Amino acid sequence: MAIETIKWVNGVARIIDQTQLPNKLTYIDCRDVKTMWQAIKRLSVRGAPAIGAAGALGVLLGLKKFEGKDRTAFIRHVRKICDYLATSRPTAVNLFHILDRMRAVVDNDRNSDIKTLIKKLYQEAQEIFEEDRWACRQMGRHGARLIKNSSRLLTICNAGALATVDYGTAEGVMYTAKAKGKKFSVYVCETRPLLQGARLTTWELMRENIDVTLICDNMAATLMKQGKVDIVLTGADRIAANGDTANKIGTYMLAVLAKHHGIPFYVVAPKSTFDLKITSGKQIPIEQRKSEEVTCFAGAPTVPKGVKVYNPAFDVTPAFLISGIITEHGIIRPVSVSNIRRVL
Amino acid sequence: MAIETIKWVNGVARIIDQTQLPNKLTYIDCRDVKTMWQAIKRLSVRGAPAIGAAGALGVLLGLKKFEGKDRTAFIRHVRKICDYLATSRPTAVNLFHILDRMRAVVDNDRNSDIKTLIKKLYQEAQEIFEEDRWACRQMGRHGARLIKNSSRLLTICNAGALATVDYGTAEGVMYTAKAKGKKFSVYVCETRPLLQGARLTTWELMRENIDVTLICDNMAATLMKQGKVDIVLTGADRIAANGDTANKIGTYMLAVLAKHHGIPFYVVAPKSTFDLKITSGKQIPIEQRKSEEVTCFAGAPTVPKGVKVYNPAFDVTPAFLISGIITEHGIIRPVSVSNIRRVL
Repeated sequence: MAIETIKWVNGVARIIDQTQLPNKLTYIDCRDVKTMWQAIKRLSVRGAPAIGAAGALGVLLGLKKFEGKDRTAFIRHVRKICDYLATSRPTAVNLFHILDRMRAVVDNDRNSDIKTLIKKLYQEAQEIFEEDRWACRQMGRHGARLIKNSSRLLTICNAGALATVDYGTAEGVMYTAKAKGKKFSVYVCETRPLLQGARLTTWELMRENIDVTLICDNMAATLMKQGKVDIVLTGADRIAANGDTANKIGTYMLAVLAKHHGIPFYVVAPKSTFDLKITSGKQIPIEQRKSEEVTCFAGAPTVPKGVKVYNPAFDVTPAFLISGIITEHGIIRPVSVSNIRRVL
Repeated sequence: MAIETIKWVNGVARIIDQTQLPNKLTYIDCRDVKTMWQAIKRLSVRGAPAIGAAGALGVLLGLKKFEGKDRTAFIRHVRKICDYLATSRPTAVNLFHILDRMRAVVDNDRNSDIKTLIKKLYQEAQEIFEEDRWACRQMGRHGARLIKNSSRLLTICNAGALATVDYGTAEGVMYTAKAKGKKFSVYVCETRPLLQGARLTTWELMRENIDVTLICDNMAATLMKQGKVDIVLTGADRIAANGDTANKIGTYMLAVLAKHHGIPFYVVAPKSTFDLKITSGKQIPIEQRKSEEVTCFAGAPTVPKGVKVYNPAFDVTPAFLISGIITEHGIIRPVSVSNIRRVL
């Protein structure tokens, strides 16, 4: 792939600035935790698994600021970094899971000195990265079976290399199918307001020579009616214990439309995107973002001054509209509380 | 309203340049038929009834070019203008109906001299304008009964004063309800790619002090799921004899979503939008527009170079998804071949 969305280079977290794609491929070197927090907040790094990885590296960056030799103070410091990073974005659960893991490294260790704890935190971050790579490959392997020769896929937002450490969830399935020699085509919803589909997913898929066609989000229904979509694949930001799935705004629209047209609708997400502590999607907090995302383009207003805007970044698709959830441990199908527990 | 979308001023057809709204309220003075053709083509004037009115004035503009005294040559000239104007946009049927009426003025008159024919063409155009005004008011009157106090409406694109000679079809219903003292609020889909909802409808509704909230098209589903939409109202570009309705891309999406959520979905359109010669929506030609509408903003590309785009300007909503069609002659409900014939 050669897309390195996020990596650790000589004590710096280097991320692709995704707000600049596809016009410019530029990087941000995060040298402190605040820079990482801001990068997450303004979507320079985005996508549930990538935000999780960014959180892990954010913790490492925060360690540099600690001075002194008091073990208890160090542990308090780590907890504080984790609490701070958790305030960057509310919906994707991967970030919280990964911050919990980093926090647990210090909380569950009653003996190690500071130097050893730091080493263990670095090891944990490395494991998080390796698990992401492994999960992507496994999701790709399980999901690729659903892609047939000449399949027409539809997706929204970006759930690819730019959304993970490795090569993606929904797009990972596409890359694996391509590697297996399958020929297929992909319709990509542009994904208003921030155009992640138009800017990021088309860019990724074209680099891999996958046949891609861009549509506006409001064109998905007519494509389906014309019989031009065989399967819908999307990523996820948080999945409740019953399978209700929060993902980029517009995903629920696609799920209803797919149901109406009898088209299979699959979510692709690693175990770290599940939040088994909540029983249904009603408990998922939905991030509301500022109205300028909808009303302006490159700083220039496109609408009358003062217009009210509703701008939720995510929606929740109820489990009954989801044909299956492709995880690194296999495909959960049908989506039910017991099947989710069994597969994970 | 004081919005004069299209009018005849001293031998000139003056139209609002809707591509410049809401940032600038500017006018184009069309002095010849070609300028009018171009204005229709690039959507400076848009909306099915307004395009029809533009066609009528386009014919009047074309008369100026005729020189000579040969009655047969004059009639040939009028037919040629009509044929030319008919090539501007393919989907909205109002244009063709109105060009047929202008053509019929000369075709059905075996005696009048050129001067009289010209006078009759001017009279026909005036009648077309008066009928639009009357139809808007009647649609408003019939439709306003469906709006209750505290109703939450959802609409797409622009079917208001900017889409007609008078004050609109779907928006006309809102204006009448407002005039009757009803308090309600309106969600407006921004309507990608050209943002007619965001640019034009919010501008119109805010001028009339109607409570309006802008959303991206992909947010309509989640609004409906949250119980925030009581009724969907849209305009139409062409309605087949069975009630299948072509309208702005995204309308079919709203109809499927409304059905799924048990929300009434109404089309508001005058008789001139019906095409009773075609039996179903399958026979409606759907205009495909250039990819730059999707890939660029104010001339700047937002997507990778060379990406394929699918950009249909309209979709077709099958009659079974439509709760009713509000016309100047009453509400067609349920939508069926016989009810359409009866009401019209």
